[in-house]
Amino acid sequence: MSSDSPNPSAPSARTRVRQAPARARYDAATLHQVLDACLVGHVSFVVDDWPMSIPTAIARLDDWLYLHGSRSSRLYQVLAAGAPVSVSVCLVDGLVKARSTFHCSMNYRSAVVMGRAEVVPEDERAELLYRFSERLIPCPRSAYREHLAKELKATMLVRLPLDEASVKIRTGGPIDDADDLALPHWAGVVPLTTAYGEPEPAADLAPGIAVPEMLRALGGR
Amino acid sequence: MSSDSPNPSAPSARTRVRQAPARARYDAATLHQVLDACLVGHVSFVVDDWPMSIPTAIARLDDWLYLHGSRSSRLYQVLAAGAPVSVSVCLVDGLVKARSTFHCSMNYRSAVVMGRAEVVPEDERAELLYRFSERLIPCPRSAYREHLAKELKATMLVRLPLDEASVKIRTGGPIDDADDLALPHWAGVVPLTTAYGEPEPAADLAPGIAVPEMLRALGGR
Repeated sequence: MSSDSPNPSAPSARTRVRQAPARARYDAATLHQVLDACLVGHVSFVVDDWPMSIPTAIARLDDWLYLHGSRSSRLYQVLAAGAPVSVSVCLVDGLVKARSTFHCSMNYRSAVVMGRAEVVPEDERAELLYRFSERLIPCPRSAYREHLAKELKATMLVRLPLDEASVKIRTGGPIDDADDLALPHWAGVVPLTTAYGEPEPAADLAPGIAVPEMLRALGGR
Repeated sequence: MSSDSPNPSAPSARTRVRQAPARARYDAATLHQVLDACLVGHVSFVVDDWPMSIPTAIARLDDWLYLHGSRSSRLYQVLAAGAPVSVSVCLVDGLVKARSTFHCSMNYRSAVVMGRAEVVPEDERAELLYRFSERLIPCPRSAYREHLAKELKATMLVRLPLDEASVKIRTGGPIDDADDLALPHWAGVVPLTTAYGEPEPAADLAPGIAVPEMLRALGGR
């Protein structure tokens, strides 16, 4: 497939993957998997004609990408105003060493979501803030005290629809020129993984309080 | 420190960290460390008034942030034209579980570099492309065949100066409200690390070609 050929399944012209379009995916299940594998997204927005990019925690819940932060921050004021934004995520799964530097690559899973955010209505916010936390830090609600009214007031929770998004995934080994296969240079993949360690109690934790089982289980992932 | 207080060491108003400014760093050594720990940056640029965010491989070499890609891609045309861009990186080092979801957080190292890229001059490109590869995939030059003229021609290598950048780092345990310390909820940190695995030879690799020692050594990092 030429990089100029339109991919009919892209949801919009601007989410169509132009480089290596054979690696593009546009189905919701794949998009959800990639977003769910990420803790942080990079939010891009325009301020005074300048593109800004800010990393922030993300949580995909149902068909939305949620972002939260201080109500006083510029990023959340921009999001709450419904300004155009893009959010990108990327996980590197491996270094791909070819016989030439030209064909070196990485294995990765990436996604870009574009759109305008909306503020989560007041009456949904408390529940969704628990779900947001649980997505990132898997703990039951009983592991926390209740939200305080002043906390709910200070926290902005916004969400982007997932209807304008693209995914790009590379897997597998190097793709060398046929002429290079006989060269005496090593070629292959060095896998990369993210691992959770043993939970470390806070210095001010009272004795005898057990680690939530869901947190301990992360280590097995 | 109030989030409104100006930080005198920020290199420009727009790189000044506004949220949690006590976590900001602006020195070159810290910036280099954070960029060097990352393989991918998220490049933000403006197309038709819309902010785009694209993940791409990055390499910090000396006082520049290098990006490379196909000369035909839109991203590199934007970069080569010297359009305003921001590049952000973020590594998550841990999940920070507090007694309230409000004080939950992540430990992270992030950086934002802003500026306009320049195209690397023709006579520096071949050498810097080797250094770019080596930064991401640690292999000596002898592990590759030489660049081909057509490859050099097809590859765009651009660089951003690092003089307008900021770093933000969070470390340590949760910071709970004093009133919450006696609650029976666990609090602490679940560390996250990225690990390199054993190099996996390409399916088409001839027998008897050893893995470069530098690649195997990644597993010990």
